[in-house]
Amino acid sequence: MITGHVFIATSLDGFIARPDGDIGWLLERDDPAEDHGYPSFIADKDAIVMGRGCYEKVLTMGEWAYDRPVLVLSRQLADKPVPEGLKGRVRFSGSTPVDAMAQLEAEGVRRVYVDGGQLVQSFLRDGLIADLVVTTVPVLIGAGRPLFGALPHDVSLALESSRHFPSGLVQSTYRVLR
Amino acid sequence: MITGHVFIATSLDGFIARPDGDIGWLLERDDPAEDHGYPSFIADKDAIVMGRGCYEKVLTMGEWAYDRPVLVLSRQLADKPVPEGLKGRVRFSGSTPVDAMAQLEAEGVRRVYVDGGQLVQSFLRDGLIADLVVTTVPVLIGAGRPLFGALPHDVSLALESSRHFPSGLVQSTYRVLR
Repeated sequence: MITGHVFIATSLDGFIARPDGDIGWLLERDDPAEDHGYPSFIADKDAIVMGRGCYEKVLTMGEWAYDRPVLVLSRQLADKPVPEGLKGRVRFSGSTPVDAMAQLEAEGVRRVYVDGGQLVQSFLRDGLIADLVVTTVPVLIGAGRPLFGALPHDVSLALESSRHFPSGLVQSTYRVLR
Repeated sequence: MITGHVFIATSLDGFIARPDGDIGWLLERDDPAEDHGYPSFIADKDAIVMGRGCYEKVLTMGEWAYDRPVLVLSRQLADKPVPEGLKGRVRFSGSTPVDAMAQLEAEGVRRVYVDGGQLVQSFLRDGLIADLVVTTVPVLIGAGRPLFGALPHDVSLALESSRHFPSGLVQSTYRVLR
């Protein structure tokens, strides 16, 4: 069965970006000498699903960073062509999270990296997330784009592991309990 | 110089209580056999400051739990009498956080436990918090009373320590950087 997996950083007050999308507060607290586990996280994922906000943010960061097939869920982009340089690596879809996961599963995908705040919220609401790696950055930014949002019911989690880094990042891995 | 100190629990999505004040989700995940450090935290505090919401919540929980002088900051309670059973242990004040801390300092108080979400937010905005012990409970509740709020500027933190418990609680101690 196909499962969704989250690997995301947040300020201590729960924001993944400032209101305008800025993540300088995160980048300036990142120590490139520390291995925060992304390589081992992505190693067993077959595909990446992200929302439009996340896709457009990644586009602004220069080189395309992903070596996995990316599905961008966006009604707005669904009937637009994929940019020339990203063909074969990126697809656009207007599907719901449930339908998108069913489509990916039919294609043989099993483990999906779900990226971007809004999409993580939708996938959590629809019960499509199996686990989350949440990395907390030691700063309060006061306002921004929240990692989590409204839910139809509580989502109980089991802490799988937690570790911290000299940079002050705290990284906790949670499994979603059904 | 007087300093404010926070020791508080939050859901992973940043709430200290449900919209109606309920903390059952927290209590049911608390393992009384685990020492989460409150006794050693409170040992070197001279006084406790809380807001009305927190005070009224504590009143509903039966026996008065605090063995330190408590100052309740509330314009609404400021001119009300303290309940008979709490005289000598509780005072009400309509002061601002800055004035309340100055008053406590004049009385010889040095280290203050600042409790309750709204008050923690006010004290953070006014630069009155020296450090925070934040205990994250492994659940998403979707809505409620937020631990953190708007800020006039970023608050940079240094991670002092982080540990986790078999119950799944993750407890991180942050020092506020000036």
